[in-house]
Amino acid sequence: MTRLLDNHLAGRWQAGSGAGTPLFDPVLGTELVRVSGAGLDLSDGFAFARTKGGAALRALTYAERSAQLARIADVLQGQRDAYYDIALQNSGTTRNDSAVDIDGAIYTLSQYAKWGAKLGAARWLADGELVRLGKDGAFQAGHFLTPQRGMALFINAFNFPAWGLWEKAAPALLSGVPVVVKPATATAWLTQRMVADVIDAGVLPAGALSIVCGRSDGLIDALEPFDLVSFTGSADTARAICGHEIVLRHAIRVNAETDSLNSALLGPDATPGSEAFALMVKEVVREMTVKSGQKCTAIRRVLVPQAHAAAATDAIAAALAAVKVGNPRNESVRMGALASRAQRAAVRDGLGVLGGEATLAWAGDESEFVDVDPAVAACVMPHLFRVDDGDASKLVHDVEVFGPVATVVPYRDPEHAYRLARRGYGSLVASVFSDDAEFIARAAIEMAHAHGRLHVVTPAVGKVHTGHGNVMPMSLHGGPGRAGGGEELGGLRALGFYHQRSAVQAPADVLAKLVEGAAPWQGGAG
Amino acid sequence: MTRLLDNHLAGRWQAGSGAGTPLFDPVLGTELVRVSGAGLDLSDGFAFARTKGGAALRALTYAERSAQLARIADVLQGQRDAYYDIALQNSGTTRNDSAVDIDGAIYTLSQYAKWGAKLGAARWLADGELVRLGKDGAFQAGHFLTPQRGMALFINAFNFPAWGLWEKAAPALLSGVPVVVKPATATAWLTQRMVADVIDAGVLPAGALSIVCGRSDGLIDALEPFDLVSFTGSADTARAICGHEIVLRHAIRVNAETDSLNSALLGPDATPGSEAFALMVKEVVREMTVKSGQKCTAIRRVLVPQAHAAAATDAIAAALAAVKVGNPRNESVRMGALASRAQRAAVRDGLGVLGGEATLAWAGDESEFVDVDPAVAACVMPHLFRVDDGDASKLVHDVEVFGPVATVVPYRDPEHAYRLARRGYGSLVASVFSDDAEFIARAAIEMAHAHGRLHVVTPAVGKVHTGHGNVMPMSLHGGPGRAGGGEELGGLRALGFYHQRSAVQAPADVLAKLVEGAAPWQGGAG
Repeated sequence: MTRLLDNHLAGRWQAGSGAGTPLFDPVLGTELVRVSGAGLDLSDGFAFARTKGGAALRALTYAERSAQLARIADVLQGQRDAYYDIALQNSGTTRNDSAVDIDGAIYTLSQYAKWGAKLGAARWLADGELVRLGKDGAFQAGHFLTPQRGMALFINAFNFPAWGLWEKAAPALLSGVPVVVKPATATAWLTQRMVADVIDAGVLPAGALSIVCGRSDGLIDALEPFDLVSFTGSADTARAICGHEIVLRHAIRVNAETDSLNSALLGPDATPGSEAFALMVKEVVREMTVKSGQKCTAIRRVLVPQAHAAAATDAIAAALAAVKVGNPRNESVRMGALASRAQRAAVRDGLGVLGGEATLAWAGDESEFVDVDPAVAACVMPHLFRVDDGDASKLVHDVEVFGPVATVVPYRDPEHAYRLARRGYGSLVASVFSDDAEFIARAAIEMAHAHGRLHVVTPAVGKVHTGHGNVMPMSLHGGPGRAGGGEELGGLRALGFYHQRSAVQAPADVLAKLVEGAAPWQGGAG
Repeated sequence: MTRLLDNHLAGRWQAGSGAGTPLFDPVLGTELVRVSGAGLDLSDGFAFARTKGGAALRALTYAERSAQLARIADVLQGQRDAYYDIALQNSGTTRNDSAVDIDGAIYTLSQYAKWGAKLGAARWLADGELVRLGKDGAFQAGHFLTPQRGMALFINAFNFPAWGLWEKAAPALLSGVPVVVKPATATAWLTQRMVADVIDAGVLPAGALSIVCGRSDGLIDALEPFDLVSFTGSADTARAICGHEIVLRHAIRVNAETDSLNSALLGPDATPGSEAFALMVKEVVREMTVKSGQKCTAIRRVLVPQAHAAAATDAIAAALAAVKVGNPRNESVRMGALASRAQRAAVRDGLGVLGGEATLAWAGDESEFVDVDPAVAACVMPHLFRVDDGDASKLVHDVEVFGPVATVVPYRDPEHAYRLARRGYGSLVASVFSDDAEFIARAAIEMAHAHGRLHVVTPAVGKVHTGHGNVMPMSLHGGPGRAGGGEELGGLRALGFYHQRSAVQAPADVLAKLVEGAAPWQGGAG
């Protein structure tokens, strides 16, 4: 039997009971480790996090907690090779794809360490200016953010076992809120290893960081008033969490990041042969293939002017044809496996559903898989679909196939394009490819209400833009509606979720004292 | 039969079908008017609000919409006498109590008109500074708030038929979001009349403001992606809304303001005979009796040092004894009726429940009701309870009796007091009465995480403070946990709920264009 990974709860390592659930190499099919959270006393562990972890973190200043984030980044940096090895084995990802997760995590931690240091020796935040209540100014109102005193439960997705933890933990820990992470079982190994390294390094006070592997039952039941939940995953699970009796009873704050049918919009000016057209094609292919399309921000819908739909489809298909798929241990391979055979089955189901409405434009040839046994590996070829009528099509806007899959959707005019983008009913991100400044500005404003992020690519920034799907810690990550309605990152804005905003109405001298002890926060960019 | 009030939906006045539900004078028991929303085509009406109302509002600038708010305030000001008359008849409130609702509404509208005017000719908001993505600054990120493109459904409570509408509608309309209000049936008349006056005055574009009376079924079912809900009322109803399938499916943003066991905290320094002690007694009595204690912000728990618990109880009881209760048409009456006989029954039930655990300290004498028939009027006497052990008592922290009811709870030391305050599991407001600046500052920070607002009263501001329960538009209104987790008001902060925040990653010149068209928003105070 393979090794059973421990959980860290109530300040100590605890083995779950039973044989546990095995984790596999999605390329080779071999069993790697096992996880079990069965039999853990969650109430006791959560109470420890709240009382010990929370109190110890809140006793520190933002600057002191920032220093801890910097040390965590150092600890992780020191073990980078081990993480790449785990990712290769357990996620089946190429080195470049593993970097998005692992180096993305370290970069995000480093950024929060830097931003948090600027908050200095404060333990709470002042939001905006004081306002007079009455004419003489003796009695005024101020707004302050104080750390919330529950714990933060992270229920995370399989596609980002590293970044998914740290992009949430960085602002939580900086805020003084203890973290309990429940990683997705299929790829829990990397998360568990990183938590173990950080615990072993003694960076954080006892109870500040806990991990429960392999179980989800009972987690929400063990929550109490003032706890927080940050969830990343399917809309179905988000619904179950948000509709859970405990969450409703205590109005527990839930941040959810769920399905998203993100679009790339090719401007009317970007004719085939133009630089903007080429940049769009390159980005669509990158988004379809990075992490085998297993990114919540990946492009799913490619909105192109009707006249150029065929050319766009052909150009994307041609570029996809050059992508070698297979065993990431082979240097020639650019796209590895999906995270598991279960994901492969889900993607294939999704392809069937989408194919019932859309026309398949490119699907490659599975016989060209490199160095894998197709009967064992969780590999799929990139699939490009097209539809002729984006209004009549429903599934293209509603069904997120979580793999290397996108659909070209023609539009008649810009207003039509915006309507199609909105038809995702709320998305994480849309990108715009154009060299027409007027069009871009209008597109941004028209589409913003339905998106958490807009990413504009012009020829001038073709080499320096940060990528449609890359989540930069400076920028808000999240989106309305189907995307879950959450807000993560966005610099120090992320601290808002982990703090309670309160108005304080008081004599001016009382408020002056509170402002003096606070760091300024303007909702604000880091 | 009394008059059936019309609904305003799809840009026209529409009568509901059937006989409708009668509204009563809670003092005299007479039937006043009837309401019915039966048979209305909600989907059609909501679509009209979204498409016609939303588009027309969004075509205006913040300054233009501010001017509309100012005109609304003028229209309401012109009909003030009629509103006081309706409040007297339908809410059974004294003139002072009606003022809290009616003049509070007009004041709040005026404030938003003033703050909104400063946003000028913009149609969207810039949140924070631009941040470089990469070293040369060619590609940057900015954050913007754009008006959400759904409609805002307000499901409101019976205690504030005027202010309850306008404190929400002011920031919604200023944001460019159309409003549909569903007032609580028992007191819907005043809301309906105000909406009618504003519609008749032609201040707003068609579809910007709608009202549906007398029904709640089907309202949530008719919502679509990007719609918003702002609810005020019981925690049970909030749970039903937040757990509704449509809300969960589209991650519809819900702002809820629900039950709250607010506290007043008497500082350890405030011995009987001190000014702070007297200010506390005065405020508790005011909070218990204003609007007959039917305020979500009213003081329910009076936390006092153990040594002074008896003195505090006696002093509050003595002051309550001077409050005349009865028909608000009688000049000597300081406290009128509850809103309905149903509310009276609910309060009496609550008194029974609370009395099972707490000791009744004062209940007055119902034979002293002024000018009312006790068999008809929805009058109750103020009831003061006390408990000896705030830790062993459960109901005092959990059961909100929505009437003139409060309980004195002794504490041992400040840490114990903070724990007791937090035991409300999230409240709208706590007030602190003390003359000890150190204690006050620490109390504010210790209790803030569990409260949306802290209200500090020292002898220096005894005459100018704005009151524990008064909701000032400059200050955040809402609270975590049991209080619903919502945020309303707080100056221009309220605009956040009606806007979508989006990151825009783009070439610097594109961002410069968007910033140029925006008004600055810092999460920010008005």
